[in-house]
Amino acid sequence: MTRIVMKFGGTSVADLERIRNVATRVARAVEAGHEVAVVISAMAGTTNRLVAWCQELSPLYDAREYDAVVATGEQVTAGLMAIALQTIGVEARSWTGWQVPVATDGQHGKARINAIEGAEIVRRMQAGQVPVVAGFQGIGPDRRITTLGRGGSDTSAVALAAALQADRCDIYTDVDGVYTTDPRIVPKARKLARITYEEMLELASVGAKVLQTRSVELAMKEHVRVQVLSSFTDAPGTLVVDEDEIVEQEIVAGIAYSRDEAKLTIRRVPDRPGVAASVFFPLAEAGINVDMIVQNVSEDGTTDMTFTLNKAELPRAREVLEARYDEIGYAELTADPDVAKISVVGVGMRSHAGVAGTMFKTLASRGINIQVISTSEIKVSVLIAAEYTELAVRALHTAYGLDVA
Amino acid sequence: MTRIVMKFGGTSVADLERIRNVATRVARAVEAGHEVAVVISAMAGTTNRLVAWCQELSPLYDAREYDAVVATGEQVTAGLMAIALQTIGVEARSWTGWQVPVATDGQHGKARINAIEGAEIVRRMQAGQVPVVAGFQGIGPDRRITTLGRGGSDTSAVALAAALQADRCDIYTDVDGVYTTDPRIVPKARKLARITYEEMLELASVGAKVLQTRSVELAMKEHVRVQVLSSFTDAPGTLVVDEDEIVEQEIVAGIAYSRDEAKLTIRRVPDRPGVAASVFFPLAEAGINVDMIVQNVSEDGTTDMTFTLNKAELPRAREVLEARYDEIGYAELTADPDVAKISVVGVGMRSHAGVAGTMFKTLASRGINIQVISTSEIKVSVLIAAEYTELAVRALHTAYGLDVA
Repeated sequence: MTRIVMKFGGTSVADLERIRNVATRVARAVEAGHEVAVVISAMAGTTNRLVAWCQELSPLYDAREYDAVVATGEQVTAGLMAIALQTIGVEARSWTGWQVPVATDGQHGKARINAIEGAEIVRRMQAGQVPVVAGFQGIGPDRRITTLGRGGSDTSAVALAAALQADRCDIYTDVDGVYTTDPRIVPKARKLARITYEEMLELASVGAKVLQTRSVELAMKEHVRVQVLSSFTDAPGTLVVDEDEIVEQEIVAGIAYSRDEAKLTIRRVPDRPGVAASVFFPLAEAGINVDMIVQNVSEDGTTDMTFTLNKAELPRAREVLEARYDEIGYAELTADPDVAKISVVGVGMRSHAGVAGTMFKTLASRGINIQVISTSEIKVSVLIAAEYTELAVRALHTAYGLDVA
Repeated sequence: MTRIVMKFGGTSVADLERIRNVATRVARAVEAGHEVAVVISAMAGTTNRLVAWCQELSPLYDAREYDAVVATGEQVTAGLMAIALQTIGVEARSWTGWQVPVATDGQHGKARINAIEGAEIVRRMQAGQVPVVAGFQGIGPDRRITTLGRGGSDTSAVALAAALQADRCDIYTDVDGVYTTDPRIVPKARKLARITYEEMLELASVGAKVLQTRSVELAMKEHVRVQVLSSFTDAPGTLVVDEDEIVEQEIVAGIAYSRDEAKLTIRRVPDRPGVAASVFFPLAEAGINVDMIVQNVSEDGTTDMTFTLNKAELPRAREVLEARYDEIGYAELTADPDVAKISVVGVGMRSHAGVAGTMFKTLASRGINIQVISTSEIKVSVLIAAEYTELAVRALHTAYGLDVA
């Protein structure tokens, strides 16, 4: 017998008809002899409406009250799902975050799960009942309702799977798995049967938003096997697992891209100790995340520094740096929002040389200029002009042998 | 310093604008130096939508899950109200039923309050915070959310006022008090400054639906002074109090009417012991409430029995009695849905004779025939043809000297 946590997102439970469909899917898993717990999100649109009400009453709303308001969305779906399951003969019971309880820290609006008390849930599952747990929420040290921040239901599901020692956590979403790249750009993209946590994290961080990053980090830490699959088809999905579960490891798992970044260059900064700190400290203080950073070698005592950041934060970053013009002592600040970051991801590159080389050669052969390069253990990212995005992704997909046969 | 529970119904918090208005009203009470706790209902329409979802999934929905779904309506308003109060500088905090806690029995969907733990709420009020309590809900012995049934928020407010030993429980609604009769029928109807619990109960039971009956019963039992007033005006309302708080007691407090009843007559029933039981036992078993009952004197060994019941239950009552035709042994069953019950209510009639006589004489002078009469200690009710309703109410209102000067 397999113990499974099944998680359904907002589009999968958007109306009563879809809630009934999900119930049928859960019933099939129960009939197949599995022990099943369900984690659900709010009906699509509900959370946005509740958030908008809080914001309209006060842009500086109290996060505790925001949590009390917003957490109701999942509570409603949990109750409705329990009714839908009972109606087709599946014993079920809804659980809010405080009922489980899902103990979190006290950071309202973006709480982190500390512990889940799973004993009673397990007892119910063993007795043949399906617990339907409201995702995205918990209870803080002050006995008030907390929420985990947007997308937190994935994290709820993985944390519950860990607490229940489930064999698998199935995340049902509106895509049917993780692809080697975006199928809208590369029709020959392949669905991956398996992918490692590390690869999934790198893909998520560069724009392939299938799973919330926090949920993947937690799954990796707790060794929870996560399956991503569609609630609208019956196709098998993609399994996110430990590296040692993948026998025939491809060198490159996928190609990701992001057009959310902008490039900022500070020209002719005095090349002296502490100058990088004088640039990046004020940005960090302003809450601006910097991604890729490149500093050229020094010429005539000055250097150019280039970095990327979220496009939406470009105006604020300019403001911060212009306010420190005298302190930093640069000649010029230039920004380019028309860039794209292309990343090649794969744990196989740890043991295989030449992955970066193939990337550079492929892009060069298409006449695509590389503006910035950054690498991690399992990823090579380059910044290029945005207009080349699709061309670059397609060329790399072919070059690494990822095209469907 | 006065300690007040302020309760606002669904129409008073129907949208963000009204929630802001309510917050302003609460702020004024706080500025006046009162200790204030707020009890609120769901935004108008919300509860109906949530109930409809449960019913659409299953007409035989699980009442526990129904409670989990439906209780979210008040939780949302409580959080939004706390934000609205904070925004105008009033310290506030929302409380769900389980947080207070409001301990109820386990009858999901129609739970009764067993106890309210008010110590923490009092501590917060004394520290200058306004607790905003979600009405209509509590927590059952099994640690699951319960609801008190439709209109339960009034009961929540009165029970909270009792637990907090509040000086007054102000119930804000869409009418501005209790009138001597329906002002839509009698423009000269007067708003009562004070009314006793008993009178309020009798008026509620005959169709003047200002307060939920349960909340009045509880207020009477716990000696909670209840004020009914409008959230849309600043006029003083009606105070519902113990009899000894009313110095100058009128003989008649008000005239009520109900067109919700129908009359059933069973003709020529054998006049033998047990025949009444053979009629009313099956009706009770079918869950049909019978109101007024009249049995005529016997002629030739048979008698006629007349009684009233809710109009909506007439078809079912006929079915029950027709199925027992042989057993009861009557000649004929006749029904009349076109009747109205007119009631004269007042604690003063305990010590004043002639109240019923005035009623009969007044109706006779207008040519209105009385079909059935029933009396209680503080009420005289008559059943008449529905078409005379307005005429009867106006004539009685004048006859008892209730018209505005």
